[in-house]
Amino acid sequence: MEFTSACPTVTECGFENLRSLKVECGAWIGYEHTSFCGQQFILERGEYPRWDAWSGSNAYHTERLMSFRPICCANHKESKMTVFEKENFMGRQWEVSDDYPSLQAMGWGNNEVGSMKVQCGTWVCYQYPGYRGYQYILESDHHGGDYKHWREWGSHAQTFQVQSIRRVQQ
Amino acid sequence: MEFTSACPTVTECGFENLRSLKVECGAWIGYEHTSFCGQQFILERGEYPRWDAWSGSNAYHTERLMSFRPICCANHKESKMTVFEKENFMGRQWEVSDDYPSLQAMGWGNNEVGSMKVQCGTWVCYQYPGYRGYQYILESDHHGGDYKHWREWGSHAQTFQVQSIRRVQQ
Repeated sequence: MEFTSACPTVTECGFENLRSLKVECGAWIGYEHTSFCGQQFILERGEYPRWDAWSGSNAYHTERLMSFRPICCANHKESKMTVFEKENFMGRQWEVSDDYPSLQAMGWGNNEVGSMKVQCGTWVCYQYPGYRGYQYILESDHHGGDYKHWREWGSHAQTFQVQSIRRVQQ
Repeated sequence: MEFTSACPTVTECGFENLRSLKVECGAWIGYEHTSFCGQQFILERGEYPRWDAWSGSNAYHTERLMSFRPICCANHKESKMTVFEKENFMGRQWEVSDDYPSLQAMGWGNNEVGSMKVQCGTWVCYQYPGYRGYQYILESDHHGGDYKHWREWGSHAQTFQVQSIRRVQQ
């Protein structure tokens, strides 16, 4: 089946689950549960022949993709956001506009980020260096781009641990 | 134990296996087998508290890291390489000097790359979009930077499938 807009429940489109997919155009977010809940999976253009092609490496193993939606505000060239050491936009801050496979290699002090403000574009933050582990997708047009605690960007790891960050490509 | 140079066999250093690690400085490659063989894992600065922190998502599941070595020629800013449609540097070609979470989104015709020439720096190529799946590390100071067939960059997937590419950060 071909989709050009959000699908809140794949089972209502005749699927029990999704086991492979192709992104023909644009960038999308897949979700573990219906109604855009649970673990997030960034889906850029290309072929995903099996579940682990989009899941990445996650401690919490689940083979479900029950809803998905397109990303509206991805803008690879103009992307900009600010990362903060502490929650609520406190502590040391750093403006980023590029991809960072290792925040620590670029001088960030530890393996955590307290809060983030997205000024432009869509970003993916990852638990581990090199774009691995849980994926958290942050958009400038959601929450006004403000993510002031890990509860606002993703709850699975239940930690501030963020070790790599990159822009989403449309 | 702290390491500042290559380790061809972790068992000869008193380890049975490695289950967690921290990269304090530089970029490294971890290998599934001794003597720098088998599946490759790019290791940039940061904390890897469990096996799946460095493994990424792989169809072929192995929990071993038996050798590792530092990368000498990583150069994030000056990195440059050419990707070719066909093996032996034939067919359509494209010079890249940036990170591409989706080669297809940037106009590459399909989900495969036939061969690659690394002019400068160290690169990681991935089977799937968004830096997922098997990791193949390509260095300008190995094989003279020439990788003319998938057998020269990694043999696990046994396919030319390469859907994302990025520079290594030191």
